[in-house]
Amino acid sequence: MTQQPLILYDIPSTTPEKAWSPNLWKARLALNAKGIPYRTVWVEYPDIADLCKRIGAEHTGMRPNGPHYTLPVVQDPNTGAIVSDSFKIAQYLDKTYPDTIRLVPDGTAAFQAMFVETTTYKVMFLMYKTFLEKIVPLLNPRSSEYFRRTREAFFGVKIEEVAPPGPARDETWKEMLDGLSLVTKWEAEGKGIFMMGETVSFADIVMLALLHWVKIMEGVESKEWKDVMGTDDGRWAKFYQALEKWIWVDEGSYGDK
Amino acid sequence: MTQQPLILYDIPSTTPEKAWSPNLWKARLALNAKGIPYRTVWVEYPDIADLCKRIGAEHTGMRPNGPHYTLPVVQDPNTGAIVSDSFKIAQYLDKTYPDTIRLVPDGTAAFQAMFVETTTYKVMFLMYKTFLEKIVPLLNPRSSEYFRRTREAFFGVKIEEVAPPGPARDETWKEMLDGLSLVTKWEAEGKGIFMMGETVSFADIVMLALLHWVKIMEGVESKEWKDVMGTDDGRWAKFYQALEKWIWVDEGSYGDK
Repeated sequence: MTQQPLILYDIPSTTPEKAWSPNLWKARLALNAKGIPYRTVWVEYPDIADLCKRIGAEHTGMRPNGPHYTLPVVQDPNTGAIVSDSFKIAQYLDKTYPDTIRLVPDGTAAFQAMFVETTTYKVMFLMYKTFLEKIVPLLNPRSSEYFRRTREAFFGVKIEEVAPPGPARDETWKEMLDGLSLVTKWEAEGKGIFMMGETVSFADIVMLALLHWVKIMEGVESKEWKDVMGTDDGRWAKFYQALEKWIWVDEGSYGDK
Repeated sequence: MTQQPLILYDIPSTTPEKAWSPNLWKARLALNAKGIPYRTVWVEYPDIADLCKRIGAEHTGMRPNGPHYTLPVVQDPNTGAIVSDSFKIAQYLDKTYPDTIRLVPDGTAAFQAMFVETTTYKVMFLMYKTFLEKIVPLLNPRSSEYFRRTREAFFGVKIEEVAPPGPARDETWKEMLDGLSLVTKWEAEGKGIFMMGETVSFADIVMLALLHWVKIMEGVESKEWKDVMGTDDGRWAKFYQALEKWIWVDEGSYGDK
């Protein structure tokens, strides 16, 4: 295969795997699942907007002061394509590399989009509130300062006050576990461990990224990881084991070289 | 075809079509879309539990005082099957009558279940609050009394106080229209007018039942119907027109004869 490796722009952390953000993991897992060669380029938070403007990556939202740029972005030197947003990346990879595992089977794009949005509110955002305080120290200094400043502006309080340990955080965590059980309930309609039964699709990539986030943030010995693995009679433990083979990160390099 | 007609147990109203409840319409539209011969048996609210127990229909929920029975129920004299719940009915019909339009294509059962639940909260329940007051007078006397009594127990206030005309009801209605736009946003990921693109599935039956409910409750000259038809640049008007052919009701008979 004469195919050149793609580039995945990701945000580094000081954790052993370096990759830590669930939305970034969604794109990485899509590439890993499909076995498409790529290399990671690590970008600190304050450099994301400039990078995106320079390489021509689309913004993913609008803010009062203009377009908002986010990672993941995938750059494909084989086609010249630059794609933002993990779901759009999965769809791009499906279209461009049709001989790899299909992550958005025909006719399911709208369902996958609904799944991404629903789990963002019912699972990811609740994890995010719980983990927020722990994200700050695991980022490199420039990203850490940027993350704290922008998130405190968003929430209007110190990061430590968003979900301090105690009943409110416990409640948020419980609500997140209920979100997992909701997905389990839907999946019971299919006849398999995945959202589409026996067939893996982007929805499962999303769930794998979210489960793995708990492992990254809390560690395998934590109450939180045990909560997740025990939820729905161990169903998420089985799910994680089935797809764990896709969880790996290359060394990568800094900057766009 | 030597197939005997199935029986759909439905709740009557004094509207011209008699059928009026969105969850019942979901089952009726599934039968109509598939072209499966059936006849309607009309059952008043206070008679539902006794009917279900007598014919052996499963309850669909639990209440403090025991199992809770609801319609739709479909009875199939060809197989002896008795099926409660519109989504289960659609799945039963797919399995038993495989030569008709497939409403739950392979691998989509979990997605369809997610769609049913999401639209129940984001669309149907908001319509329900808005229409509540208008449902009472369109039911026959025994059902009307039962409906008012049980719903007032549920909400803890008079039906007229749940969403009285004014800013609160306007806000609920606006939220419902936002729910429709959410579905439109997801569907934009597919490339067609339906949730699965060009392929009709149970998700579309759900949306058709909900849209038709607005027509039944408010009429074609109402602001509400015009709101819905105008939402998302007329997308729901096109959708309704495409599937309107499935909206019909047989005369039916009272009781289980």
